[in-house]
Amino acid sequence: MARPPEEFVKEITPPSEDYSQWYLDVVRKAELADYAPVKGTVVVRPAGYAIWERMQAGLDRRFKETGHQNAMFPLLIPESFMRKEAEHVEGFAPEVAWVTHGGGEILAERLAIRPTSETLIGHMYAKWIQSYRDLPVLLNQWCNVVRWEKATRPFLRSTEFLWQEGHTAHATETEAHEEALRMLEVYRDFLERELAIPVVTGRKSENERFAGAVATYCCEALMGDGRALQAATSHELGTHFAEAFGIRFLDRDGVEKPVWQTSWGASWRMLGALIMVHGDERGLVIPPRLAPTQVIVVPIAPGKERESVLTRTRQLKSGLDGLYRVQVDDREEYTPGWKFNEWEMRGVPLRLELGPRDLKAGQAVLCRRDTGEKLTVAQEDLNRTVGELLGQVQDDLLARARERLRDRTWTVATVAELESRMADERGMYVTGWCGQESCETTVKEKTGATLRALPFEGEIPPRCLVCGERAQHRAVFARAY
Amino acid sequence: MARPPEEFVKEITPPSEDYSQWYLDVVRKAELADYAPVKGTVVVRPAGYAIWERMQAGLDRRFKETGHQNAMFPLLIPESFMRKEAEHVEGFAPEVAWVTHGGGEILAERLAIRPTSETLIGHMYAKWIQSYRDLPVLLNQWCNVVRWEKATRPFLRSTEFLWQEGHTAHATETEAHEEALRMLEVYRDFLERELAIPVVTGRKSENERFAGAVATYCCEALMGDGRALQAATSHELGTHFAEAFGIRFLDRDGVEKPVWQTSWGASWRMLGALIMVHGDERGLVIPPRLAPTQVIVVPIAPGKERESVLTRTRQLKSGLDGLYRVQVDDREEYTPGWKFNEWEMRGVPLRLELGPRDLKAGQAVLCRRDTGEKLTVAQEDLNRTVGELLGQVQDDLLARARERLRDRTWTVATVAELESRMADERGMYVTGWCGQESCETTVKEKTGATLRALPFEGEIPPRCLVCGERAQHRAVFARAY
Repeated sequence: MARPPEEFVKEITPPSEDYSQWYLDVVRKAELADYAPVKGTVVVRPAGYAIWERMQAGLDRRFKETGHQNAMFPLLIPESFMRKEAEHVEGFAPEVAWVTHGGGEILAERLAIRPTSETLIGHMYAKWIQSYRDLPVLLNQWCNVVRWEKATRPFLRSTEFLWQEGHTAHATETEAHEEALRMLEVYRDFLERELAIPVVTGRKSENERFAGAVATYCCEALMGDGRALQAATSHELGTHFAEAFGIRFLDRDGVEKPVWQTSWGASWRMLGALIMVHGDERGLVIPPRLAPTQVIVVPIAPGKERESVLTRTRQLKSGLDGLYRVQVDDREEYTPGWKFNEWEMRGVPLRLELGPRDLKAGQAVLCRRDTGEKLTVAQEDLNRTVGELLGQVQDDLLARARERLRDRTWTVATVAELESRMADERGMYVTGWCGQESCETTVKEKTGATLRALPFEGEIPPRCLVCGERAQHRAVFARAY
Repeated sequence: MARPPEEFVKEITPPSEDYSQWYLDVVRKAELADYAPVKGTVVVRPAGYAIWERMQAGLDRRFKETGHQNAMFPLLIPESFMRKEAEHVEGFAPEVAWVTHGGGEILAERLAIRPTSETLIGHMYAKWIQSYRDLPVLLNQWCNVVRWEKATRPFLRSTEFLWQEGHTAHATETEAHEEALRMLEVYRDFLERELAIPVVTGRKSENERFAGAVATYCCEALMGDGRALQAATSHELGTHFAEAFGIRFLDRDGVEKPVWQTSWGASWRMLGALIMVHGDERGLVIPPRLAPTQVIVVPIAPGKERESVLTRTRQLKSGLDGLYRVQVDDREEYTPGWKFNEWEMRGVPLRLELGPRDLKAGQAVLCRRDTGEKLTVAQEDLNRTVGELLGQVQDDLLARARERLRDRTWTVATVAELESRMADERGMYVTGWCGQESCETTVKEKTGATLRALPFEGEIPPRCLVCGERAQHRAVFARAY
């Protein structure tokens, strides 16, 4: 069973050679996901789902701390509902999967499998909201949605995916605006602190905004290959859905008014981002806060010393348990070298090695997944050192990702400069934009880069990169997932 | 806004008058769920979903403690997969919702929205399992399923519902058998300890077992109206799905063999059971361990004493926070009497009242939701007393439910005796059964009672209640939800 380490590593295509294949190799070898029989659908395997569960927990805690409650809205939406908000149906209709038969009969009306739930929730809010006393309504749901896709990439693009969608209703436009920005900040904080992924936050152009929204805000992250990925979005819906579904309330002043709404979502795409921001040629690298296993203990227990090494290993583990998430790999059919590579590939942040010599010296060896650095520590200092190292790894991952984002962000003045820069290096390109869709489209046609965000921070450059007119916005362009 | 308490209570139909309407009133008034636009579907509102979240957490912890991992399998299953296990498709085909169009095109093959996932998981297991070293596979998923229904009752019967489905694969029949019984015991323990619902555990008759299973085991609970409800099931699938999907492994002895499988599930029906086992004429009663809010604090703060009462209320709450789940209702637009009724209706286990007189006396009043009992306690003893009372309420709910199950279980010798007993009182009827389907069917036709379980415990009565032949089984009949 035991294979030399080199052979194992070779099974992952080097990212420098074929980034896309490297991504799929990591997903498959680390057993994060697998393809399912219906084209475009995937299975998330335990190693992937355990990371998603920790993401859910981290976000869910933040949603509850900001006053939100969870609910469950149904999977099936009548076609007539989808049609009530004109821009919304236009945006989503091409991606919808339709249920036409149920219980052995043809249905009188086709039912959409939800691609998102604004319409159905709009209908329910109209029933529940009567008075200013019923506001704000601050709900979220964790669920599956279906958007028909031909090409699949696990976590990045699939017909069915898991996400959360928050839906809120407010008495005033100001409150809704504040809510949309509050939730964007929740995402930003979560992505940086837990996933160790720094993001650019900003507004989307009209062209890129959510179908039915007044404004879409986003968190854009930079992947290892220099492409951008939208990690989360938050929308101000204005009164669009309130008008379409009749969500009206009697205000304190005795006047009946439509509510102001927001919606915001993040999906398991974040798992794709995690792989592409931190992964390397040896495989996955999971930030300690999200790692289902934070420390993998590999006893090096040859022949007659096996029992004494295993006994001490179990003692050390029970000391660490409760403080950290620790797993021991004491399988006999694999060599230590094979295990080192296996757990590196699976992205466990720290490895603890314990052999007969360590036993005698009262020490153990810790090895960082992110840097490969090895550290010999006294066994009595283990609990403290492990905690410090996990914190250090988390911080360093964020620092390195920040550094990359900074190093790979270029300011360009013209579309020609953008083209030549892109030929050299992939990343984010900051520039001026006049605000006209035609200039945005020109950039896309010439370079393949799309307008990722109009960032909240930074000065507006003087001129539009296409038409040369006075710029109205600071804009970030990039090729994106 | 403030209404006299009596009026409010009147809005719930007395259970003795119309149990079914009482149930719907509780669901609606306590804002647990609402009807959604597609016939047969429901929305679970925050008050209901928060209980479901606590149920999920309690079960999920137990699944993980018994070595299971979570995963996510897709919603859509090709029709051809559904057809691979003959008994399975026959059982589920009539309830399936079919997707026929996606991405603007007619699909080459219809896709079932999963009514359960044995077939799709069978396909994946065939890919993943090659060797005895890959076994056992112990997976679970929390997800939505769709089974077409015409009549809906929230939590009890709906087209879409939330559940968990565990799916395991083992090298031997013995292991699979042990697993199926282990998970039944997990459910029993969970239902008794957390939901305070005692159950009868046993095996299902062939007639009642899961489509495609070799044996189905179940937990049957008794509702307030004397009808039974199946709260959870665990199935031994034998090698049925392994044969249909080619899930084979190379065993230690070098021989290729099919795996032995189990599946087991529990759904939000448990929420329906909770309502019907503990609820009363005043509304919902939530067992303390599952209550999202365990203590509702109602300050009685008239006029000029308002500030001092509210200040002390907040102090007491912060003392309780972290130990218990506490909420303060300090709304000015409602009277204390209205709030008492509101929170009783919503099922909060304990109410804490604090008025000006209590303030002076350094005391507070605690009121139990389940018994209405009031207790005056010194404020310095509050933390301890609240903990003791919550434990007591949890224990007493279980004890009372046990007592009812005992009091409403009758032994009957003949189907005539069963009929006359049912005319008097609803409950569970223990009897002898020869094992023939025809006798089981006769009982159902004559009385409407179905064979709920062949219990693991208790002696086998001498004769079958229908044919009078020697009984092969102790059997429990009941009318069921």
